[in-house]
This record gives sequence, C-alpha cells and structure tokens, in this order.
Amino acid sequence: MRIVSRNTVLPAWPLLDASPIPAPPAPFGAEAAPHAPPHPAAARSIVLVGMPGAGKSSIGRRLATKLGLPFIDADTEIEAAAGLPITEIFTRYGEPHFRDGERRVIARLLAGPPLVLATGGGAFSDARTRAAVAASGAVAVWLRCSLPTLLRRVAGREHRPLFLNKDPREVLERLMTARHPTFAEAPVIVDCTDEPPETTTRRVMEALAAHRDPSRLPVRLGDRAYDILVGEGLVARAGALIAPVLPARRVVVITDENVAALHLPTLTAGLAEAGITIVSAITVPPGEASKSFAQFQSVLEAALAAGADRRTAVVALGGGVVGDLAGFAAAVALRGLTFIQIPTTLLAQVDSSVGGKTGINLSLGKNLVGAFHQPRLVLADTGVLGTLPPRELRAGYAEVAKHGLLQGELWNWCEAEGARAVAGDPAALAHAVMESCRLKSAVVAADEREESEEGGRALLNLGHTFGHALEAECGYGGELLHGEGVAVGLGLAAALSARLGHCSQELPGRVISHLQEVGLPARIGDLGRKFSAEALMGRMRKDKKAREGAMRFILLRAPGDCFTTSDVAPLAVQTLLRDEGCGE
Amino acid sequence: MRIVSRNTVLPAWPLLDASPIPAPPAPFGAEAAPHAPPHPAAARSIVLVGMPGAGKSSIGRRLATKLGLPFIDADTEIEAAAGLPITEIFTRYGEPHFRDGERRVIARLLAGPPLVLATGGGAFSDARTRAAVAASGAVAVWLRCSLPTLLRRVAGREHRPLFLNKDPREVLERLMTARHPTFAEAPVIVDCTDEPPETTTRRVMEALAAHRDPSRLPVRLGDRAYDILVGEGLVARAGALIAPVLPARRVVVITDENVAALHLPTLTAGLAEAGITIVSAITVPPGEASKSFAQFQSVLEAALAAGADRRTAVVALGGGVVGDLAGFAAAVALRGLTFIQIPTTLLAQVDSSVGGKTGINLSLGKNLVGAFHQPRLVLADTGVLGTLPPRELRAGYAEVAKHGLLQGELWNWCEAEGARAVAGDPAALAHAVMESCRLKSAVVAADEREESEEGGRALLNLGHTFGHALEAECGYGGELLHGEGVAVGLGLAAALSARLGHCSQELPGRVISHLQEVGLPARIGDLGRKFSAEALMGRMRKDKKAREGAMRFILLRAPGDCFTTSDVAPLAVQTLLRDEGCGE
Repeated sequence: MRIVSRNTVLPAWPLLDASPIPAPPAPFGAEAAPHAPPHPAAARSIVLVGMPGAGKSSIGRRLATKLGLPFIDADTEIEAAAGLPITEIFTRYGEPHFRDGERRVIARLLAGPPLVLATGGGAFSDARTRAAVAASGAVAVWLRCSLPTLLRRVAGREHRPLFLNKDPREVLERLMTARHPTFAEAPVIVDCTDEPPETTTRRVMEALAAHRDPSRLPVRLGDRAYDILVGEGLVARAGALIAPVLPARRVVVITDENVAALHLPTLTAGLAEAGITIVSAITVPPGEASKSFAQFQSVLEAALAAGADRRTAVVALGGGVVGDLAGFAAAVALRGLTFIQIPTTLLAQVDSSVGGKTGINLSLGKNLVGAFHQPRLVLADTGVLGTLPPRELRAGYAEVAKHGLLQGELWNWCEAEGARAVAGDPAALAHAVMESCRLKSAVVAADEREESEEGGRALLNLGHTFGHALEAECGYGGELLHGEGVAVGLGLAAALSARLGHCSQELPGRVISHLQEVGLPARIGDLGRKFSAEALMGRMRKDKKAREGAMRFILLRAPGDCFTTSDVAPLAVQTLLRDEGCGE
Repeated sequence: MRIVSRNTVLPAWPLLDASPIPAPPAPFGAEAAPHAPPHPAAARSIVLVGMPGAGKSSIGRRLATKLGLPFIDADTEIEAAAGLPITEIFTRYGEPHFRDGERRVIARLLAGPPLVLATGGGAFSDARTRAAVAASGAVAVWLRCSLPTLLRRVAGREHRPLFLNKDPREVLERLMTARHPTFAEAPVIVDCTDEPPETTTRRVMEALAAHRDPSRLPVRLGDRAYDILVGEGLVARAGALIAPVLPARRVVVITDENVAALHLPTLTAGLAEAGITIVSAITVPPGEASKSFAQFQSVLEAALAAGADRRTAVVALGGGVVGDLAGFAAAVALRGLTFIQIPTTLLAQVDSSVGGKTGINLSLGKNLVGAFHQPRLVLADTGVLGTLPPRELRAGYAEVAKHGLLQGELWNWCEAEGARAVAGDPAALAHAVMESCRLKSAVVAADEREESEEGGRALLNLGHTFGHALEAECGYGGELLHGEGVAVGLGLAAALSARLGHCSQELPGRVISHLQEVGLPARIGDLGRKFSAEALMGRMRKDKKAREGAMRFILLRAPGDCFTTSDVAPLAVQTLLRDEGCGE
C-alpha cells in the first residue's frame, strides 16, 4: 500500500535566509525624556495590527518615540530580506510562500530586544504568525477603525495595488470580514477614531499600561497537555483566547439556565468578536439532576442535529455539573470533540475543571459512567466569581483548603489570606485558583487515570471519605453542599490523623479553626443535625475507593505531607465519630 | 506534598545471582533411538506444572528421555542457586522473595537450549512466572489429576512439610482451589489417571504433537498495544488466554441472543476453567437496533448493578453490533474498563474488532456517539465461523477482498485461494483473518484516531463511499448486507479509477469477476433493484468523510496502491452510475 501526499514542494525564497536583518535604529528616540524612567510598556515588544489605513505606521512611530523603542515596519524588512518588492514576491511565489517568509522575519525581529513593529495587514491573519507573536512574548495591539474612518483615510491611495481599479469600500469590507476575527485575537484592542494621532497614541499607551495577561498554567500531560488561564474578564475575551486551539471557528456551548442568564451574552459577544460561530447553545436545568442519562442523550442529539461536526468544539460554561456533562458529551460525540472549559464556580475552577474526569450519574450512584477527556484549554475567569452566592463561594474554598493541606505552602497562605478570598477579594481569589490548579494539575500529570496503588490522584480525596459519607446521608438536595462535606471531612481527617499519632495534636485545632473562621462547618456538630456512626461507616465501606470492604483514608502527617492508607482500625473511626457526637 | 510507598526493601537472597546454574546433563538420554529424527516437540522447552503428586518428575524424566532432552527439576536448581533448602528460604525471606528468585532461575533455564523442566507446585501460580514461561517460548503442560488420584499418590509423603500434621485431603483441596485456575493457563492440558506412567508420557507426547499455538499478531499502539490471536478453539480456551491481561478474574460478558445460544456455554466453561467469574452475562437482541441509546444505558446499568468494579473486564462475544456496543460500554463504565473482543463473524474478525472504534447510533445517523477504546486482547476463533450462514460469511469476505486491494499481495491470494475461505476451509479462513488483521492493524497503528489529512485510516473506506450510499438506499433491514454493499462499492471504485485513468482498464474486470465468483454482488445490476443516481450521489455528499460537500473517494492505481481524493468530478460519478444502470 502506498500513501500519497498531495503537497508539492515550493522553490526556496531566494534571499530570505541569506540577508541579515538590518540593525534597528538607535534604541532611544530624540523625544524621549532623557531622565524619565522607562515606561512599563517598553519592557516587551509591541506588535501593531489592523486594516490598511488604521495608522499602524503613524501611531507606531509615535509610540516608539514615547517608549524609547526602535520602530520597524515588517513589510520593509521583508522586502529587504527577500530582495524583492512584496507584490513581486506574491506574483512569483504565491501567498503561502510569502506568509512563510513573513512569519520567519517577524519571529526573528521579535527574538531581539523590545521594539515597536507595524505588520502588514495580512500578517496577523496567518495563524502561525499569530502563534509566533504570542510565543515571542510580544503584546499585539489591534488598532480597530470603523469603515467610514478607514474610507476617509485611504482616500488618495487608490493607486496602491490593493485598490487599483476597485471600489475601496468593497475591498475594505471584504478584508474586514476576513481579518477582524483574527485581529480580535490581539490581547489589546484600541478603537481609533478621527482624533489626532497623538491622542490615539496616548490611548494605546494607557491600554498597554492597563493590560494584564492572564496567568497561564501549563498542565503537562504529553500529547494531551493544555493550559489553564486564570484572570479577570476572560469570558468577554473567550473568542480571542480559545481561537488558537480550535480546529475550526465553530462551537457548541453547553451551560445551565442560571449561568446562561448571567454570562451567556458576554460569552456570545466574546466569541462573535473572534468570528466563532455558535452552532448551538444548549441550556440544561441547574443542579445535579442534569447529570442524567436522559439529559446526556438530549445534549448529544441537540449538538449533532444542529450540525456539530468533527471540527466543532464543545464549550462548557458553568459549574461542575455542566463541566462533567458537557465534557462527557464532548468525549463521545463523533468519538471525541475538542473540549473547552469555562468554569464559573470556585469549586469548578479549583477542582472539577482540572484533571479530565467527566461523567454522569446512574440511579445506582454518582459518576458511574464517564470518560477521561482532557480539555484543550480552561478559562478560569475570577471575575465571574463575584456573581456566586456567598455560601457557594465558601463551599468552593473548602477544596482550596484541601489543596493547601496537600501542598503545605498553600496552607500557610490559607491561614494568612484565605479569609480575603472567601470575602471575594479578586487578587486573593486569583491566587487561590492558580495555586489550587497548580497543585492539582501536578498530581494529575503524575497519575492521569488514577492508577497509582499508593498516593497519586487518590490523595486528592483528602477529607472526601468522611465528606462523601456525610453528603450521602444528607441526600443531594442542597442541605449539605459538597464543599461543606469536604470541610467537615478535613476536620475529621486531621482529628483521625492526630488520634493515630501521625500528626501533631495541634494540627486538628488549626484546621478546624481556620475553616470555621471563614464560615465553613469543620466538625460534625457544626452541621446541626444528628448522624449515626454506623450509617456513616457503612457508607465509607461502600465508597468507590474502598478495597474489599476496607475503608480507605487519606491521612496527614503535616500540611504538605499526606498519605493513603487502608490500615485504620474501624474502632478508631467509630470512636472518633461517637466523640464528635454521632449516635450509634 | 510527599507520596509515601508502603513497600519495604528485603535483604538480597544470598547466593542466587552469584552461583552459576549447573550445566544440564548430557543432551541425549541413553534410551533415545540413536537414528530416529528428533520428535517435533523437542524443538522447544517443556514446562510441567501441576499439583504435588501429579507426576511432574516421574513423567518429566520419561518425557525427556523419549525426546532426547535434558530433564531438570526447578526446585533442585533453586536450592543450589540459593545455597539453602526451599523450606529455609521460605522461613528466612518469605514467599514473595522466594517466588522472585524462583522466577529468575526458571527464566534463566528456559533461555538456554530446549529441556524438560518440572516446576514446584506454586511456581506457575505466580503471574510473573507464567509470563516469563510464555515469553521464553516454552510450552507449559498441566498434568491434571483428580483429588482421589492425588490422595493415593501422596500417601506415604505425610512427613513432607506440606502435609506435616495436616489432613492431606484438606491441604490438597485448598491448593487445588487456589492453583487450578492458574494451571489452566497452560496451553496443553493432559488428564492423568492411575494408568502407568509410560502411558501418561505417551499421551503427553501426543498432546504436544497435536498442540498448535494460536497465531499472535501484535497491534503496535504504544501503551494501548494489544495482541490479536487467530486460531481454532479459542473460545473454549478463552479463560486461559485472557487471564494474563485481566486486572482481576472477573468479567461481564456482553453477547446477543443468537450468539449466546451457540457459543456462550463454551465461553462460560472456558472462563470457569481459569477461575474467572462472570459477574453478569448480558444478552441483547441481535441486529443493528441494539446499538441504541436505550440498549446502551440498560447494558451499563445491568453491568454496574451486577457489581462490576474498576477491575472487572468487559468481554464482547458476537459480531460488529455486539463489539461496538460492548466496547463503548467498556469505554465509559467507571470511566473505562478493560475490554476483550471475541468476534464471532468473519466481518467482525477481519474488520470491526481491529482499530478500537466503538459506538452506538442516534436516529440522526449511525455511529455518531462512541469512543476509541482499544481492546486488551482479541480472540479471533476461526472455528466459530462454521456456524455462520453462508451469506454472512460471504459478506464478511468482501472486507478481506478490500484489504487485499489495499495490500497487494493479499489480493493475489484472494484471487487464488479466496474461494476456499468462502467455502469454509479453516486454513484459508485463518489466513484471510490473519492477513486482514495485519493490514488493518498496521494502518490503524499509523493513524489511530483517523487524523491523517490524506491516506491513513481513510484508506480503509475503499469501496465504502459507494457501499454506504447503497446500504442507506436499501435501508438497514437486511436487504443488502454491509459487506455486499462494500463488494459492489469495490467494483465501482475500480471502475471509477479506470475511467479516470488511475489504473489499468483490466483491473475493474478482475475485481468484479473475483467477487462474483465467490458469490458476492460486484455491480449495481447484481442487486436486482433500481437505484437513482441522484439519490446515491446525495448520500455520498452527506457521507461523514465528505468535506464541505465534496464527495471523497478512495481510488486504485493497482492492488496495493490506493489513495484518497476529493478531486473527482461529480459528472464522472454520475455517468458511471448511469452506465451501471441507475435511473436519474
């Protein structure tokens, strides 16, 4: 059997690799105040993108002067490198070959010291060039102009090859349709009007000063590796952020009614900006009941009936239920679609959106059917946490505290700063999310499919053996939230560890007081209802993690030093539960 | 975070690695007829396993003499290597350490020239020792004795440590329960009675002469690699064959009513022999309708309600429908269980059981929901093909012919010998299955998830663009079997290739006559009903493989030289279909 490629090999672009890039002009412009400290925006290269007439050269030169950086026009560099005018390169070698050379020139320029780079209109529309710009650490700025503004500015340029013998309006409209979705991937967007260039330049500098890249955490899973982005305003920028990882600019959004009301319009606008079509926005009722077989089937049928194909991605916008359901649908629709997570609860941001576990419930039990399906990208927008009910935010924080106890350093942060996160402080929340994801993703990377005999992913169940039993006893109707069960579970795990001599006698007190201080229950007595020790132990023996009926615990030696064990005498557990006020 | 292992390090076994293995005795026994050709069984080492008293030494010595091989007793070698009696090694270092040394001694002995090796009763019950024996290429023979026979033979050995101060019956019963399931993994089993040892020895030699290892084809998929075993009688030996790859000796069997009636009792007995518990045997109605969401849910619920856990494997016993349904259930039950395929149709043996595609149908279309879930082992028992209706066997052969056209050499075999396979000749069927699996698994290994732009798994759709359209037009009620549609599709693909000048003008005639000779339809006229060219083309444009509405074909240059293309003028297809007798 012979497999035939239909690709052909193009001739080499003559002078590109041979001709050296001209040295940039002197690094400091004449107008730069000689003693002023360098502007913070001058620390990295700035790439200006936009339509013909947007002012990339005119604003770029002014910006370079103000920042004390060299200004370079990419097209000029390319012509120098190729030894030919651009129109000639196009004619002789075709666009793909030109774009290839263009990307290499731009990448080489950006590999040097910071500069301001104006790019040709089509450069940033090439996906590989955008990737090269992003990889270089430069920040791209889209100078966005309305059509009337552009038309006024290009008046008099009718002799340019782009407009020759054509209606400029038609040319610009066609280009805008094609390029705006890709320009939207620039991290900074500045709307340009007919104001003087000096004013626009000042606004670009302000936008650069205000811009914060989201924190990016790589999850190292080989060919299933992905990034978690943590920051504010990511839902609004979702289109630009996810576009680079999509097979095609088509998505199915799966969300629930509550989240749809709060965040779907923002997401829709953000996706539209990057030219991403929502094939279908599927809304399920909020709550655990949506993780049913019936809902699963109807989500799949809706997505496929709407025309989802192999290149369509699934975007989950919501908490753990939406993420589990949408992720499982993505795993099996057409045998696997690209999956994007936009978790909107603290619990989902710190826990369920990391690790690739997806699934639904059967009447026999929770999460009995599902798949390991890693997302291609996670956007943890800490801005949306402000819309959460305080009780839900607190419950999510229990998993942060758990990660703290597993990690050590993070536990100290919890004791010192955790209350700020629970109070809604954006910086504290961002830290809590980032560090939780860092801990969890490291554990997951080492044991993706929970196959380690000891340690591994099982450690993430710290507090969960007790927590799951308490949750199950309370039913899943909202009397006890998962995170609240985990919080009490953490208190009990610490108490059990101390009784068995694994950790200091002080640790349980520290754990319990911190959790209680942030408003979480941490002891069975905090739950205001009676439990039977026997019933709880029965649940624990039937836990998925139990082996041959032996209860399995994660115990603590100290914050940052936990271990898994099946070697706990049932009597010790029973005594603890009775001492905590449980009945028989 | 610190992950703690509970394993402890044992002291080294003193003399094991230092002391050399004693040279085996002279290679030819005194009784061997000096001029007789060596017995075929003498070409590889023979490992005798069985209970104490089964006669491993007594039969082993006689067998060695007859075969002209050295005889070695493993326990003697181990004592020499360790410089200690076995009881002492047990006492000092414990059983795990003893088994480890035992395995290394046995592996070293089997790495040399052929010999007859009697093993201690517990050696073969150690999974790693069994794996070492299998990996060495030796053949294990279980000398199976009934309890009364054993009791008679061990009479007088009450002083042995095994029986000291114990009831021999109790000791033996306990050992039989523990060890018989693992002894059953020996490829050759000989029942021993009270007959003279010479008689038993003769029967062992007969069994060795009759024994054929199944052909083993490795499918190279990295950490998802698995073997396909092809041969007769594999269902009856299923327990012994699958036991080495099971996480635990527990399985759920999924089959259909027809197959259950024919082969489930054989499978059940085969599994029981190796001590494998059938947690649940789930039977679905035969036919495509069982690939439904409702059936999928009920299979999952039945499996989990019966107690399937993470270490339970799913065994599919049946054709393509059962394999797709059971494979998908295995992929998602508890986020993925070990999956074993026992395909019982020729189509499933040569096609659907290789490649890991699993799934179910929606009312919107076939196979729209599913997963790539590779089996851990495939048993293609060519013996069961004798129970297939001839039409179904022929339809399965169409995929063999397709693999022939993709592979080249196999096409020549088809023309020469294919008719024997269709007539049910076991050797021809075994060859057809083996070579089809070899071709398909090589294609799959290079493009597991069908992501190649050109070639790759898509090539396996040779004949399927036409075939799927014909099938869809006929409905899926059995008027046209999948393989029959593929056969006509192969004829049309060859005809189209010739019309477009890609292959010789003779090839279509060769393809069509071969398929017709074995009783398959190969031209539209063979189907005895009218088709509309427009309707067929409409189906082809909507095929999953079509891109932006362009029909996608696999065309032939010659047997062994196929390629994928979207570059076929619709008019050429239309003209072909009209010339073949289709209406508008």
